[in-house]
Amino acid sequence: MNPTNLESVIRDRNIGDVGKEMYELISTLYPICRSITGKGVRDSLHIIQSHVPLEIREVRTGTQVFDWTVPQEWNINDAYIKDSSGEKIVDFKQSTLHVVGYSAPVKAKMRLGELRKYLHTLPEHPDWIPYRTSYYTESWGFCIRERQLRAMKDDLYEVCIDTSLTNGSLSFGELLIPGKEANEVLISAHICHPSLCNDNLSGVAIATLLAKLLTRLSLRYSYRFIFIPATIGAIAWLAANERTASKVKHGLVLACAGDSGQSTYKKSRRNDAEIDRAVSHALKDSGAPYRVIDFSPFGYDERQFCSPGFNLPVGCLMRTPHAEFSEYHTSADNLDFVHPESLADTFWKIVSAFFILEHNKRYLNRKPQGEPQLGRRGIYRAVADQTDGGGRERALLWVLNQSDGSKSLLDIADQSGMEFGAIKRAADVLLDCELLKEVPTSAERSA
Amino acid sequence: MNPTNLESVIRDRNIGDVGKEMYELISTLYPICRSITGKGVRDSLHIIQSHVPLEIREVRTGTQVFDWTVPQEWNINDAYIKDSSGEKIVDFKQSTLHVVGYSAPVKAKMRLGELRKYLHTLPEHPDWIPYRTSYYTESWGFCIRERQLRAMKDDLYEVCIDTSLTNGSLSFGELLIPGKEANEVLISAHICHPSLCNDNLSGVAIATLLAKLLTRLSLRYSYRFIFIPATIGAIAWLAANERTASKVKHGLVLACAGDSGQSTYKKSRRNDAEIDRAVSHALKDSGAPYRVIDFSPFGYDERQFCSPGFNLPVGCLMRTPHAEFSEYHTSADNLDFVHPESLADTFWKIVSAFFILEHNKRYLNRKPQGEPQLGRRGIYRAVADQTDGGGRERALLWVLNQSDGSKSLLDIADQSGMEFGAIKRAADVLLDCELLKEVPTSAERSA
Amino acid sequence: MNPTNLESVIRDRNIGDVGKEMYELISTLYPICRSITGKGVRDSLHIIQSHVPLEIREVRTGTQVFDWTVPQEWNINDAYIKDSSGEKIVDFKQSTLHVVGYSAPVKAKMRLGELRKYLHTLPEHPDWIPYRTSYYTESWGFCIRERQLRAMKDDLYEVCIDTSLTNGSLSFGELLIPGKEANEVLISAHICHPSLCNDNLSGVAIATLLAKLLTRLSLRYSYRFIFIPATIGAIAWLAANERTASKVKHGLVLACAGDSGQSTYKKSRRNDAEIDRAVSHALKDSGAPYRVIDFSPFGYDERQFCSPGFNLPVGCLMRTPHAEFSEYHTSADNLDFVHPESLADTFWKIVSAFFILEHNKRYLNRKPQGEPQLGRRGIYRAVADQTDGGGRERALLWVLNQSDGSKSLLDIADQSGMEFGAIKRAADVLLDCELLKEVPTSAERSA
Repeated sequence: MNPTNLESVIRDRNIGDVGKEMYELISTLYPICRSITGKGVRDSLHIIQSHVPLEIREVRTGTQVFDWTVPQEWNINDAYIKDSSGEKIVDFKQSTLHVVGYSAPVKAKMRLGELRKYLHTLPEHPDWIPYRTSYYTESWGFCIRERQLRAMKDDLYEVCIDTSLTNGSLSFGELLIPGKEANEVLISAHICHPSLCNDNLSGVAIATLLAKLLTRLSLRYSYRFIFIPATIGAIAWLAANERTASKVKHGLVLACAGDSGQSTYKKSRRNDAEIDRAVSHALKDSGAPYRVIDFSPFGYDERQFCSPGFNLPVGCLMRTPHAEFSEYHTSADNLDFVHPESLADTFWKIVSAFFILEHNKRYLNRKPQGEPQLGRRGIYRAVADQTDGGGRERALLWVLNQSDGSKSLLDIADQSGMEFGAIKRAADVLLDCELLKEVPTSAERSA
Repeated sequence: MNPTNLESVIRDRNIGDVGKEMYELISTLYPICRSITGKGVRDSLHIIQSHVPLEIREVRTGTQVFDWTVPQEWNINDAYIKDSSGEKIVDFKQSTLHVVGYSAPVKAKMRLGELRKYLHTLPEHPDWIPYRTSYYTESWGFCIRERQLRAMKDDLYEVCIDTSLTNGSLSFGELLIPGKEANEVLISAHICHPSLCNDNLSGVAIATLLAKLLTRLSLRYSYRFIFIPATIGAIAWLAANERTASKVKHGLVLACAGDSGQSTYKKSRRNDAEIDRAVSHALKDSGAPYRVIDFSPFGYDERQFCSPGFNLPVGCLMRTPHAEFSEYHTSADNLDFVHPESLADTFWKIVSAFFILEHNKRYLNRKPQGEPQLGRRGIYRAVADQTDGGGRERALLWVLNQSDGSKSLLDIADQSGMEFGAIKRAADVLLDCELLKEVPTSAERSA
Repeated sequence: MNPTNLESVIRDRNIGDVGKEMYELISTLYPICRSITGKGVRDSLHIIQSHVPLEIREVRTGTQVFDWTVPQEWNINDAYIKDSSGEKIVDFKQSTLHVVGYSAPVKAKMRLGELRKYLHTLPEHPDWIPYRTSYYTESWGFCIRERQLRAMKDDLYEVCIDTSLTNGSLSFGELLIPGKEANEVLISAHICHPSLCNDNLSGVAIATLLAKLLTRLSLRYSYRFIFIPATIGAIAWLAANERTASKVKHGLVLACAGDSGQSTYKKSRRNDAEIDRAVSHALKDSGAPYRVIDFSPFGYDERQFCSPGFNLPVGCLMRTPHAEFSEYHTSADNLDFVHPESLADTFWKIVSAFFILEHNKRYLNRKPQGEPQLGRRGIYRAVADQTDGGGRERALLWVLNQSDGSKSLLDIADQSGMEFGAIKRAADVLLDCELLKEVPTSAERSA
């Protein structure tokens, strides 16, 4: 089977078990200690390259990116706390979360009273390790289970954080899948978090599989995937791509997209951009419960894409938003917290939304005075009965009635309450009958 | 009593028992076998002519009307099914619904197994005869009760449909009642259905009585009534009246308007045309429950009037919409299904809506700085008490406050939540006091 | 303590017990018999002058003010009804409400049957005296308790109303507190009602204390306070101040503002004027239940300010609207019906609304591409955890994200759902960091 467009992909769903494939990718990436710079990110990007032809880009330490400066590269070999008996009671090799991200190197002995200042726990979840970072203020620390802290005796502890902060570069991955149009759809996932699955290996895995699918298809838009460290990566990418950014007509940040909660779409700052309407419609058409929430300037890299100097039409697709699950930024956001079915469900909803974007065009009814006679074209029931003729005829009539050149197929789907797919198929039938003609987009007119 | 305008008609309701009159007209028209062409329509139009000076127009078979061609004229003499004993077990003379509308002539003998393919029933309503047509695909058939079908034995049946399909014409009725303005209000009712009362002898009867009333009155708008076969008739009318259509400022399709359900108004494709607001307001002022629903390109001839090439401001007033009553397009839509009271109720609601259209003008407060002193003009209570002075004073203040030239009386009635009649009476009082002057409409300005 | 701006006033609330001060002012004004003209108004204005440097203006009887003429000055010495035994059974000295306002002088004897025509009672509240006036139709009358009327025997009564109607003037008070801008905030309270507390000594007292506060502060806007007889006073003021009216950018009528009900704000005729949004937001931020209702052309002097020839952005702040409390315009609207706490609560809500008006400016993010790095400016947490950083950081991000020059701080507060104060403090922090610059208002640009 070799699908050539999104319509056949959606119809046949014959592209393998994407849920399993994404879950396996997450499992492979999970043990790696990622941060905003360093080997962890680079190793992760190499793994993604085994799926899609990603280009890895490096931005040198010290590069000015708008109001920020690319920081030093951070790498870690080991980290532990030993008690006076020499036993490692905290060991980075057990969990990448044990070390505060970007910790400066430390080699010291100290009693519990002093050490305590550098220990982070979650008293309300005594068995979970919290995730903490200190990117832009030099510091160090360990994150441990509250239960472990309570068990620690007043002892002399040996503390070792074997990290380095050196001039190097910030790495990110980028892949452009060209379509007929130069206009782009941007898909962004942050790749800076260590062993945390929903936030954001879920987004990384879904973006990877989406890219793998789209490379095989004939597309209207060009699709650009970026795998970037949060905040500084998005800002670095924007600083290097101001011209590219102006080609972004639609965009999605993917994060927290693999848990068992319902889908949540956070709209772009524009509030009614086409991507906002397309994703909302795709979620509605899925038949499953979902939420659409307003833009706010917190969350993920939509913060940067939607900053007022860019104001890109970029929303964020999640399942449970980060503020609403207690496993967020803890060791409980692990391989049990994400599910192949949830990943696949998010994947297919995005495919549906992209299908809408690809086919959301405007048409002109070529027989606009009265209804054209559909019966003699064989697309209307012969014997009139008590029904409206079912969805197929309703879709034909909606498309004909609304296609005055001002309404897109998504407008018509929204107004009619029908599924976008049904409206699109009706438009295809009417195009075949030469009852419809496409209104060129402004891009097409100027081309 | 001789009313001269809609206001006195509404106030006095002294124009006879319109409900009874409409019900009797329906009873007279009920036995006739109508279709989209033929003698049945012509006979029906002649009956309406006994009430109002309708002109009957004929459009010849073969005439091209936009995407359609006027079909042959269909006439029927008789139709039956006899069993082998010679007994007529289905007889067109018992019900016009027994024959599929537009059936081609047939004279044949066949066994039940073959005949069955030409029999239509309603299994879920075994005692009702369905209504079926096949206008644009040559075919034939009988519609019978499911209970009768179940009782039919394997026998040799004689089948006779004595119809003719010949070159002739499509007939429709038209009446223009001239008003002060050339701008028109269009009222349309489809007259192609055989013995079915709510759909649409109700619409035919209400339109007839409305026309009869309006011919006696002094009017602002010109009112055009058309009695047309559904779809092809509306298309034929539009094709012959493109210039007239441009004069239609408001319009109503009347259908399913005599059952006991609440009133339902389906808005025009424009969604907020003045007719949409006027009918909605009239329904609200009636005090009875009602519904206003959005436009959709199914239903009655609003499909044609609201096609994108015309996009006329034409809505559809019903009681129970066709998709919502199971008697629709069956023999159960009979003389028991419609009621004089319901017909009269619809009639008066339309009269109220027309009253709004007639008087929905814009005015300018001639003393716009502060309130004018109403007391010295004798239109305000002398002793101030704890009240707002009741509806009469409230209406005066609303009209004065809002009459800056941008708001119509309907705007003011909507904003104030008051009845249109109260607002209109307040405007009259203020005009008498020279506190208001009319803002000419663009039609008046250019005249 | 010497506050210099509204921000410190709101923060410290260190301006004495304003509730007690307002209640005492009401108590002082309560016994005076006010009307639309005469000594009662003048005496009341003198008492207010002991708090703020009010100017008292006089408009001579006979002056034409738009559609009205300033009426004669009315003064009252005494009024009573004596029974045949010479006992005063109704005595103006017991309650100023006993005489119908603006009663013409009378000295007569009459039996109960005749007298009854001039007696007003409230049958549904037999122990309350109603408040009645007859300003523009010469008349006289007494208002008494229903219980007293029922006890009156058929006797010969001596009736005395010792009033005078003479050429004189209509008096009102006015105070302008200049700010940096010539643009004005208008605060209006009607002062024509006799011994009635909520309507409207509450509005008079609140306006007085607001004026007293504002005179001590450095202000952006100029604030104009007027204490005027209802209707004729507002019209007289407008007639004399057409140019001043054009400088009114925001305004509030204060009435019925001291009872124990929740706050109710009635919007200006413009419906979405800045004052409408500012007061609504201040009420929301108060955390207490409140209502915002649409404009209607009844109520208080917003009727005049919002007449179409002026259409000023003036709303009305109340607690329980007049139509909704049965004590309205009766002797039960007394010193027990208003409360220091309610008066103070209204006062502080207005202060909050004025604070919003004073600081509702537009800003431009000077680092609009991506987020600026707040951490290195010391205004962002160093260690990232599971939170959004709390309200302080959220407010900073909202202001940065929305400050594209098109949104005011009130827009941002509304959109974010945050308190205006938090948004304003965030803007101050960002201005200090030079991350924001003010967008000049059109007034500032042209200056």
